[in-house]
Amino acid sequence: MRLLRVNLILFEPAELARPLPRTDPRARHILEVLRRQSGGTFDAGQVNGPRGKATLGAIDPAGLHLTFAWGPPPAPPDPITLLVGLPRPQTARDILRDATTLGVSALHFVRTEKTEASYAQSTLWTSGEWRRHLWTGAEQAFDTRIPEVTSGRRLADVLATLPAASARLALDHYESPSPLSGYTGAAATPHVLALGGERGWSGPDRDALRQGGFQLVHLGPRILRTETAVVAALTLLRARLGLM
Amino acid sequence: MRLLRVNLILFEPAELARPLPRTDPRARHILEVLRRQSGGTFDAGQVNGPRGKATLGAIDPAGLHLTFAWGPPPAPPDPITLLVGLPRPQTARDILRDATTLGVSALHFVRTEKTEASYAQSTLWTSGEWRRHLWTGAEQAFDTRIPEVTSGRRLADVLATLPAASARLALDHYESPSPLSGYTGAAATPHVLALGGERGWSGPDRDALRQGGFQLVHLGPRILRTETAVVAALTLLRARLGLM
Repeated sequence: MRLLRVNLILFEPAELARPLPRTDPRARHILEVLRRQSGGTFDAGQVNGPRGKATLGAIDPAGLHLTFAWGPPPAPPDPITLLVGLPRPQTARDILRDATTLGVSALHFVRTEKTEASYAQSTLWTSGEWRRHLWTGAEQAFDTRIPEVTSGRRLADVLATLPAASARLALDHYESPSPLSGYTGAAATPHVLALGGERGWSGPDRDALRQGGFQLVHLGPRILRTETAVVAALTLLRARLGLM
Repeated sequence: MRLLRVNLILFEPAELARPLPRTDPRARHILEVLRRQSGGTFDAGQVNGPRGKATLGAIDPAGLHLTFAWGPPPAPPDPITLLVGLPRPQTARDILRDATTLGVSALHFVRTEKTEASYAQSTLWTSGEWRRHLWTGAEQAFDTRIPEVTSGRRLADVLATLPAASARLALDHYESPSPLSGYTGAAATPHVLALGGERGWSGPDRDALRQGGFQLVHLGPRILRTETAVVAALTLLRARLGLM
């Protein structure tokens, strides 16, 4: 039986032709956790490309020499765009990972009237650390597809660039008349799901969302942490769209 | 508008008649985060009892003198029992908090064929630290109700003590024919939801679950972390039961 703790290891296409340096965390994982030796194989994937089998060849000072046998290209990503009011960095890390595991095609962390401007200057965003959490989330799901991510743009600017034909839902604990669990939108339509983040939406945010075609929905009377609300809302939407 | 970052502060009934020591984390929260002074009020709750308003009176060397005005007793907890294969302590912390926020009446961390025996000796369980995560989860939900928790009992022993008339679902990525999102059980029935934890169920575990009346269900093709699967499964079940 396959263990639940799977090990898909992702590579950028540009990395495939050269040895993997022994100092790379993936090299240590292959040798020390998977305990592969020369001739051993493991599950690999190309970012936004096919999955396949990697075979470990020679290990020399240049690094681990790998050869790959690739499967077919992946299906397009699930047509869900997630939009979240920019949260504190630790919350953003969880959302980057978990939304990728659950499956979205794009993930926008937006500035709203109530978000904390300083969060956009976190090293999570300035150092590129955010990419690592996407990879962790995709590897967990045994998937190669990495969502498109933006952070720090204004809500209005992101609303102006959403897919035109999408259905749009915004979570709101205070002014929404209907539960997300009762939503009956069409499974074939791309969806945008918006969450206000730690302090919710302001009045002008709600106006912008309503003018942008968003329907306000809620997750019931209990108040969830932002990262828990993301998982709960994506779960209900994916179930509705027949993806779960 | 009420902020999403609510501040319900819980007290044990035995604590209500005496001053709250200034060294207590709740005292620091009242003075330093809520910035209450003598005469100020905040939302309080009795563990498994009513919510109400607390008024801060004198602050002297004995501590914070509080008086309370209580509302009605809470409704019975939602009739959901969660059963999880004992996970690593950090995962258990998240589950203790998030399952309490989402709402369950009991939470059993069980030993199965594939759980790591050493996890039961973690200070999370031996020091009583686990209770703190329940309080955090309940305060987040603005609720006073704390689930009953056990840890380290054998799966078979817990199965033998489940509510007799309950409907029973076990998450299984490998042998379940049907998605939890398509489950159509009756909303009025108490439910038991079981997750195998990090390494899933063994064959004998599955036999015991089936003999115990459990139906195997899945969360779709993507493999989730244990703590994410708990949130996703509780969300789908609560939505089905009309609680979300």
